[in-house]
Amino acid sequence: MRICRFNEDRIGMVEDGQVYDITAVAEDLGPFGYPLPRHDVFIAALPELSGRIREIAAKAHPIAAEDVRFLSPVANPGKLMAAPVNYMDHLQEAEEVLIKYFEQKVEQINKIGLFLKATSSLIGAADPIRLRLDDRRNDHEIELACVIGRTANHVTEEDALDYVAGYCVGLDITLRGPEERSLRKSSDTYSVLGPWMVTADEMGDPLGLGMHLEVNGDSRQVANTRDLIFSVPKLIALASRFYTLHPGDVLYTGTPAGVGEIVSGDVITATIDRVGTLTSRVA
Amino acid sequence: MRICRFNEDRIGMVEDGQVYDITAVAEDLGPFGYPLPRHDVFIAALPELSGRIREIAAKAHPIAAEDVRFLSPVANPGKLMAAPVNYMDHLQEAEEVLIKYFEQKVEQINKIGLFLKATSSLIGAADPIRLRLDDRRNDHEIELACVIGRTANHVTEEDALDYVAGYCVGLDITLRGPEERSLRKSSDTYSVLGPWMVTADEMGDPLGLGMHLEVNGDSRQVANTRDLIFSVPKLIALASRFYTLHPGDVLYTGTPAGVGEIVSGDVITATIDRVGTLTSRVA
Repeated sequence: MRICRFNEDRIGMVEDGQVYDITAVAEDLGPFGYPLPRHDVFIAALPELSGRIREIAAKAHPIAAEDVRFLSPVANPGKLMAAPVNYMDHLQEAEEVLIKYFEQKVEQINKIGLFLKATSSLIGAADPIRLRLDDRRNDHEIELACVIGRTANHVTEEDALDYVAGYCVGLDITLRGPEERSLRKSSDTYSVLGPWMVTADEMGDPLGLGMHLEVNGDSRQVANTRDLIFSVPKLIALASRFYTLHPGDVLYTGTPAGVGEIVSGDVITATIDRVGTLTSRVA
Repeated sequence: MRICRFNEDRIGMVEDGQVYDITAVAEDLGPFGYPLPRHDVFIAALPELSGRIREIAAKAHPIAAEDVRFLSPVANPGKLMAAPVNYMDHLQEAEEVLIKYFEQKVEQINKIGLFLKATSSLIGAADPIRLRLDDRRNDHEIELACVIGRTANHVTEEDALDYVAGYCVGLDITLRGPEERSLRKSSDTYSVLGPWMVTADEMGDPLGLGMHLEVNGDSRQVANTRDLIFSVPKLIALASRFYTLHPGDVLYTGTPAGVGEIVSGDVITATIDRVGTLTSRVA
């Protein structure tokens, strides 16, 4: 199943290029008073809602996907986590040196671990990316993004995929500079998620997914999730060793080689097999 | 005014060691449906609520502060930001080298910028700190914590304090290791905030505040906010250059020298002038 958020906080189910408005499914969530839940209440409830989603969708009028404005499929993430260097070719690119031994590369991500992106940076496909500091170089990074579906604490690699709600195309926009990653990658609009979320039951194991990013039609990044240094289950196990993951937390799994500059006016097209194509504009 | 949260999501006003239950003041906030606001709705409303808070407090029965369980004064922070190295003496301690030139030190924080801590790590004074990875060293770091009161984007140093809701004592608990700060400092319970928030109108400029941290009665950190390399206004200006700050965002302003290990069973007492004393236990 493909779940989206669109237009003015509508919830949709996407099938064959059509969006079916299923907003009514969220009516029974809440209402909530202060203090508010710190996790995404819709993502948490999704397993129980799937039957009702199909019922409502069956009666809804289809809207062509190209006629809606896609918002971030996750509305209330508690945290956005990201893998800094998780494809061998990008590690080589990033270090600008030839790395001879595979073990060294693995040590790299093993050492650095994950970083955080501010949730205030999150947007969907329809919102333009707004470059923050004009004098700096800004880069595109395509990543498979994984949405956590239920509370995960010290989970094993073997069990990790049971905790996933679904997958999206992610763009981890990056300001170049000497600052910590969690600052340079957290500017407003620098975390793009979408265009929808493919649920985990439909995806199965997210291995062997081809991905492809173009800027203004020029190919920039071509890769496959089979080349991830730390697989999705391994990343979830790593994250949950350091902190508890909650429903709606998002994990950006790292970008492959081909990272390049984006400038005002660019159109980014990012495709991941079995997820879809996200088109994002730089304002 | 001193605002706290206590026991089972009660809201309180603290005066002369007594807590007055003012929970009713939040009744008109919400209710909210999905998607939920991403900022702290109580902190955002605080300026309009202060008259009513005093009215309700005047009729409330006092409870001795030592008889309540203090929660984090901020319930729904969008992000926790923190300054990595912001006291000269801690910089020296951290680098374990003698730094000769003041400019080098300023460059250090200027270069690194700020990092993020996961909001899922936030607790109040009453919740015990639970050390996450037994085989690692964990350190205490006392910090003046500043709570953002209204949306701040590209604000100047001169205007920065107008965006502050109030101040708390903060503990930035830190797992030692090679990983990024935003991972090592984000374990559950590793961000302590409390015991209450002193509102900005009562505090004025947070300069010249003495601070003092003891572990089991032994003095570990003694400092004064006048020795901050980047002042609170400068930190807010820096942060708001990279991203928008929202009501309830919390800024940990950095720790002075004397950082040391904490182990199971320790009792941490952290005092900041004109804010108060936070007592925190390591489980």
